[in-house]
Amino acid sequence: MDSPPQLQNFFESCQRRIEAVLSDEIKQCDASHSLREAMAYACLDGGKRIRPVLVYGANRALGGNMADADPAAAAVELMHSYSLIHDDLPAMDDDDLRRGKASVHKAFDEAIAILAGDALQSLAFAVLAETCRSRTAVTRLKQIQVLASAVGANGMVGGQCLDCCATGSEASLQALEALHRLKTGALIRASILLGAHSADGVSDQQLADFQLYADCIGLAFQIQDDILDVTADTASLGKPQGSDQHNDKTTYVSLLGLEQAKSKASELTGQAISALTHFGSEADLLRELAAFITSRAS
Amino acid sequence: MDSPPQLQNFFESCQRRIEAVLSDEIKQCDASHSLREAMAYACLDGGKRIRPVLVYGANRALGGNMADADPAAAAVELMHSYSLIHDDLPAMDDDDLRRGKASVHKAFDEAIAILAGDALQSLAFAVLAETCRSRTAVTRLKQIQVLASAVGANGMVGGQCLDCCATGSEASLQALEALHRLKTGALIRASILLGAHSADGVSDQQLADFQLYADCIGLAFQIQDDILDVTADTASLGKPQGSDQHNDKTTYVSLLGLEQAKSKASELTGQAISALTHFGSEADLLRELAAFITSRAS
Repeated sequence: MDSPPQLQNFFESCQRRIEAVLSDEIKQCDASHSLREAMAYACLDGGKRIRPVLVYGANRALGGNMADADPAAAAVELMHSYSLIHDDLPAMDDDDLRRGKASVHKAFDEAIAILAGDALQSLAFAVLAETCRSRTAVTRLKQIQVLASAVGANGMVGGQCLDCCATGSEASLQALEALHRLKTGALIRASILLGAHSADGVSDQQLADFQLYADCIGLAFQIQDDILDVTADTASLGKPQGSDQHNDKTTYVSLLGLEQAKSKASELTGQAISALTHFGSEADLLRELAAFITSRAS
Repeated sequence: MDSPPQLQNFFESCQRRIEAVLSDEIKQCDASHSLREAMAYACLDGGKRIRPVLVYGANRALGGNMADADPAAAAVELMHSYSLIHDDLPAMDDDDLRRGKASVHKAFDEAIAILAGDALQSLAFAVLAETCRSRTAVTRLKQIQVLASAVGANGMVGGQCLDCCATGSEASLQALEALHRLKTGALIRASILLGAHSADGVSDQQLADFQLYADCIGLAFQIQDDILDVTADTASLGKPQGSDQHNDKTTYVSLLGLEQAKSKASELTGQAISALTHFGSEADLLRELAAFITSRAS
């Protein structure tokens, strides 16, 4: 990862932390061995953990402490992992490779993959609902509201549905943006908001700033994904290079061309950073993260 | 439905009520048309609504009012509907018929079925987390904890996983019971507990009584399902008669024989009714419901 040293340290600290939290949560599942194995396979030791980093980043921007943000960080990553398992299924994107290893339905089987995804979604809500001295019931309930609304039919799943329907037919830029605001944007926005609610006393103005920041980086993240699908190789991507083109998907690159897609991503990065002008140096990591999203190579 | 008049009226009143609540919730999904259609197809105008009836029944046994139990009743039925969609998928039980009509993946397609199930699970949590003047944040959080733990790897999904793995190999009575305590029992128990938490001031003793009641009727319900798979016809079942035998599934009937399975179901009904001795006449509906579960013909 080619990120500035401060961000690099923060990333690594978040990654270690979330790995331990997720590992603990999955260990507590005492049902079927293969189900727990599949859940662990999908969640542990993989991925950039950008969503947990956003949770911890928003928490830090408000002067919170990391421990209070652990449940929210785990919840968004559990939700992300479940969505990847289901997206990879043969009936959906039919991807055999994920994060450089066999996708869950290939490593296990389709039934286990469907069930592991289902169980990870439940676990995400369970983690947020767990008793925790440092967060009030009202706060935890607010986090659950934000997450449930971000991942359902009006959010992530709705976006995935648009994506399935859109394959093979040319979408407009507006339709593509609407799709990604739901499919990836909603959970990225929820990550920031859950992080904000894990610190004390976030104001409405701060929530609005965070939302704008999240919307910009969410879209920038997707544009960069589309760019990397064309410019990166399979080894760095951990999934087959050129799969969007192969699946006849409309992307920012197919609609705008490579150069214009790059400018749009960079413009969104600028907007994301501007959204944080009311914050002090505690938000520097979020600023760096915005820049990193469009400079990342994988 | 061949149930006593009082229970019959209560059932019909619960069914009308839950239909309206679910319909309202699904109308609020403004994402993809086909996704919303599939969610409505799976949830509306079908099923006996036994889980919502349990929610309303426990609420009534504690002198609560029905409106306070609406979110919990909706949540358990949404969860049940999602689990049926995913259980019917080709990679799971591969059932083409459900409640007398094509299962969701046949009426729509597999991708939509997976996504509709996913969205219904999220919606169940969203409904419980929604702001409601009559329930405190602590109560709603407790309900979410109970539901999340009932449907995840340590509950319903864990049970479905055991069921998938068990197909084709002879299970012991103990293993079968463990499977059903998770697969169907956990959500039935959660229904009673969510109903209990929707009324004011449920005591620990009352919760323990309800749990025992729920565990007995949960198992009795499954045994009756196994009996009906052998004795009822496809039209009353709304799914192919004899499908357990066809799928080489171990059932209470295959392990105990028809007569002994009937005695066990009836014994559990007695235990369920005994569990409610500390309750007055407000719990009569739950008592009648216990008896109905093993006398139902579909």
